[in-house]
Amino acid sequence: MILGIDIGGANTKITEIDENDYKIHHIYFPMWKNNEKLTELLKKYSENVDTVGIVMTAELVDAYETKKEGVNDILNSVENAYDCPIYVLDADGNFLTPEEARENYLKVSAANWMATAKFVSEYIDNNCILVDMGSTTTDIIPIKDGKILANKKDLDRLMNNELIYVGTLRTPLSFLANKINFRGKITHVSSEYFAITGDIHVILGKIKEEDYTCETPDGKGVDRDACLTRVARVLCGDREMINDDELTAIAEEFYAKLLKLIREGVDEVSKKYELKNVVITGLGEEILKDALKGYNIKSIKEIYGKEVSLATPSFAVGMLLKKYIG
Amino acid sequence: MILGIDIGGANTKITEIDENDYKIHHIYFPMWKNNEKLTELLKKYSENVDTVGIVMTAELVDAYETKKEGVNDILNSVENAYDCPIYVLDADGNFLTPEEARENYLKVSAANWMATAKFVSEYIDNNCILVDMGSTTTDIIPIKDGKILANKKDLDRLMNNELIYVGTLRTPLSFLANKINFRGKITHVSSEYFAITGDIHVILGKIKEEDYTCETPDGKGVDRDACLTRVARVLCGDREMINDDELTAIAEEFYAKLLKLIREGVDEVSKKYELKNVVITGLGEEILKDALKGYNIKSIKEIYGKEVSLATPSFAVGMLLKKYIG
Repeated sequence: MILGIDIGGANTKITEIDENDYKIHHIYFPMWKNNEKLTELLKKYSENVDTVGIVMTAELVDAYETKKEGVNDILNSVENAYDCPIYVLDADGNFLTPEEARENYLKVSAANWMATAKFVSEYIDNNCILVDMGSTTTDIIPIKDGKILANKKDLDRLMNNELIYVGTLRTPLSFLANKINFRGKITHVSSEYFAITGDIHVILGKIKEEDYTCETPDGKGVDRDACLTRVARVLCGDREMINDDELTAIAEEFYAKLLKLIREGVDEVSKKYELKNVVITGLGEEILKDALKGYNIKSIKEIYGKEVSLATPSFAVGMLLKKYIG
Repeated sequence: MILGIDIGGANTKITEIDENDYKIHHIYFPMWKNNEKLTELLKKYSENVDTVGIVMTAELVDAYETKKEGVNDILNSVENAYDCPIYVLDADGNFLTPEEARENYLKVSAANWMATAKFVSEYIDNNCILVDMGSTTTDIIPIKDGKILANKKDLDRLMNNELIYVGTLRTPLSFLANKINFRGKITHVSSEYFAITGDIHVILGKIKEEDYTCETPDGKGVDRDACLTRVARVLCGDREMINDDELTAIAEEFYAKLLKLIREGVDEVSKKYELKNVVITGLGEEILKDALKGYNIKSIKEIYGKEVSLATPSFAVGMLLKKYIG
């Protein structure tokens, strides 16, 4: 069995790949508290494992002073857990041994997106725009003739419409607009941290309540009522002052702004690289479908299932490793 | 001696008014921790006091379950501290006895802005727009023929350009724009809480470092270097990737967006009420001067001094009381 592991700051995702089957484990494991127990966790998933593929972002948590220290410590934990060959994917899409990975720690740091991109290029479409909408950001990755053309630094990605800071859950509504239409008037919006995209996506049925997995701005629940209350607060109101139809209309207006931001970004990348196909993944797939009408869309959720779309890098590094070792 | 007292959630401001002199005490006193010690604090300022005027917002802190409980408790503390007549200003601009104030607790709650507005109307200009830029918000209050025409609920104020949620210190830069120009490219902005208006105002010299009195987003200092670092983070950069001239240009771009928001709001109110004079106060007076070029501007800071512009409601309630008791 091949294991694809994505070791993130808050979650570790493990995909077990057999001949023609796969199974995904999504484990909440905050590395800033538990990094010393990582070996223990991984050992639970070590039976019948022949090869392990790794990508990581957990080296960025503040339990580590430097990326070098983080990469080194994480690889120690992995080596202590497994008695089989281990491969680490780097940001150029190459597999490295743990020893090579330690030497090239900057290249293996935060290379999880490359696993997804390379997998998409090799298994789904080698001329497409990969759009991955997570909880916090939307990554837009051009793939042309099998080459992954994304910029690597976040600053360059922000400058080239490849990183858009809107996500399925955590984006403050006040980031999307500082004025909205309300009761026929241009109305100012509070800049306090009162409501986030998770709230409007629950209200509009774009995600299920159980997928609203981050903390809420007021610490209250993720049910529709609690979401409506938070949206009302964005206009310094409450549910007596603003009725539910109006609150839904407010949610729709913020949603339209979010779709526009993503649409414009993808349109720019599409024009620049002459790409018309889009492959979508991540928690925000349904939202991306709304944003990208008119594109030829392939959905990782529809091809491989929801679990894969929520843990694509671990699945991808496993699938790439399967091909690599033949 | 007359005392004007503004009891806020985080700060209590006391203005001592003698025949032709005044002195302001600005005391950091977080009511959510210290409400039981309020009498003790006030007693320090009780010598030679003949009359006390009160406005408050501290009844809103979460140490109190309800506004009623808050108003009642605060007035108990005031009565225990002073052995002289006490008057509480309400949101209609009338002075009430403590007993009347307890009965009309909704009217005395958060009436501090009315003290400032009524003072401006009676002492400075009875046909003007009062613009008060504090740390978090900008209040725009139309005064026509001596009548204070502002809406009273925050929702209505947001709908009528009377409350703009941009302040001198606490507004996230990501509220002002989700894209900016950078190196000739439309560049996306991070929606994380990385930098606030206090940062750009220090960088551009609009406030002094000592006036940056709120917490910084990263918990670091308020010196220019720390502010530049935070602004770089808004583009996921650092000071090696983005040089200081570029960071200053970014600060200027966000500043222009802030000025525009305020300008448009005041222009709307000016048109609606046919008012051309503006009276400015608050920590952001210098910023308001930039925003409101072309208006006839009177500055409370220039007329009464910086201390008054930073504590206008306490000064105002004292001055109004002086007139009231004759």
